[in-house]
Amino acid sequence: MKQAALLIIGDEILSGKFADENAPFLIQRLRALGCKVRRVVVLSDIVEDIAQETARSSADCDYVFTTGGVGPTHDDITMRSIAAAFDLPLVSHPRLEQVLHEKIKGELTSAALRMAQVPEGSELWWDGGMTFPLVVCKNVHIFPGVPSIMRLKFEAVAERFRGRVLHTARVVTGEYETDIAERLELAVERFPGVSIGSYPRYDEGPRHVIVTMEGLNAEHVRAARIWLEGVLKPMDLLT
Amino acid sequence: MKQAALLIIGDEILSGKFADENAPFLIQRLRALGCKVRRVVVLSDIVEDIAQETARSSADCDYVFTTGGVGPTHDDITMRSIAAAFDLPLVSHPRLEQVLHEKIKGELTSAALRMAQVPEGSELWWDGGMTFPLVVCKNVHIFPGVPSIMRLKFEAVAERFRGRVLHTARVVTGEYETDIAERLELAVERFPGVSIGSYPRYDEGPRHVIVTMEGLNAEHVRAARIWLEGVLKPMDLLT
Repeated sequence: MKQAALLIIGDEILSGKFADENAPFLIQRLRALGCKVRRVVVLSDIVEDIAQETARSSADCDYVFTTGGVGPTHDDITMRSIAAAFDLPLVSHPRLEQVLHEKIKGELTSAALRMAQVPEGSELWWDGGMTFPLVVCKNVHIFPGVPSIMRLKFEAVAERFRGRVLHTARVVTGEYETDIAERLELAVERFPGVSIGSYPRYDEGPRHVIVTMEGLNAEHVRAARIWLEGVLKPMDLLT
Repeated sequence: MKQAALLIIGDEILSGKFADENAPFLIQRLRALGCKVRRVVVLSDIVEDIAQETARSSADCDYVFTTGGVGPTHDDITMRSIAAAFDLPLVSHPRLEQVLHEKIKGELTSAALRMAQVPEGSELWWDGGMTFPLVVCKNVHIFPGVPSIMRLKFEAVAERFRGRVLHTARVVTGEYETDIAERLELAVERFPGVSIGSYPRYDEGPRHVIVTMEGLNAEHVRAARIWLEGVLKPMDLLT
């Protein structure tokens, strides 16, 4: 299963000015496409932080998705940071300059022209007839931060990320987590292809533990669910 | 201003099973206390990933806060990962064993006893009469993942993190971001102690740009706001 890292760039989220909507959207969509999100990192507008995280995630994940920091203002430093991550120069892309000239009537300010700057060697993806293309540098896919535009651009390229779909199941029990821990360890040994999680919940209704299963093989997930229903005392709540 | 990193541990968030409530809570509370969140990282249950992130954040931030992965089940690997981050052995803490013996009636399972294991040299904080203390390893504060318990424990120790409070202001304009970019750059030069952000919004009502200011000196933030109100065409929307 392909793995992805999400880099959410922007002080506005870390300072609590805006809630991030892009990570929850990408987590759900990538999961539905069969791609696992390995980590999400929300970063300040600091070039070294973004560069370091981009280099690391590009190396240990199949795909990296960044959102934010691609506009024309002084705090838009994503392109510069990604160029730094790969030790590439930042260059003005002639096709992007052309798009900006067509889109913005009148003379282009130096600020507007910053939107044509990309790490050298970046690809432009025009899927679905985008006016302004998606910029892709190696395995890093560079999305804008405005949620409605981010979503439109993602849907245009989504099929490129389709992989194998994960099968899931859950068993809810009213037993204590400390009491079921040993039975869960047996399940982990017995079903090596199934990832088993345990989540105690105290906040909604009566105290309970949600035991989750996921795996690429539907039969193995089903067998794990049946086995766990047998050894735990299941509740019907939430199932 | 002190800087913090938040490490949100748990596959359940990355797989979209649960939405994370702890990062938004900590961002707001730390901000109110005068502590800046530099990054948020949401991590899978992978020991090496958590260890690597803990080591890095412990080195480049004043405080690290982790949530999740401290229960008794096989997927609770936070303590082991933090021990690995600092090359410390994982040891059973006699005071924690005692608390578990008092809390859980009857014989303790080996699973329950896992909750007494901490990185060697960890401190226990009992502020506000917590039954189960907060475990602190160097500058890493290890919180549970269940939001209601996480919040109770944080409020018990919150005053330890009080720092200098940040002053903020905003100006909303109906101009295009590309058009105001050069004026914003002038503001950045003119008010070096004030951090200036620019956020175009398309999703609610008429298109507009929110320009934000923040800084430790209230007078400087006020001067920046007045200057920006003079050079931009402010809208009254949202202010």
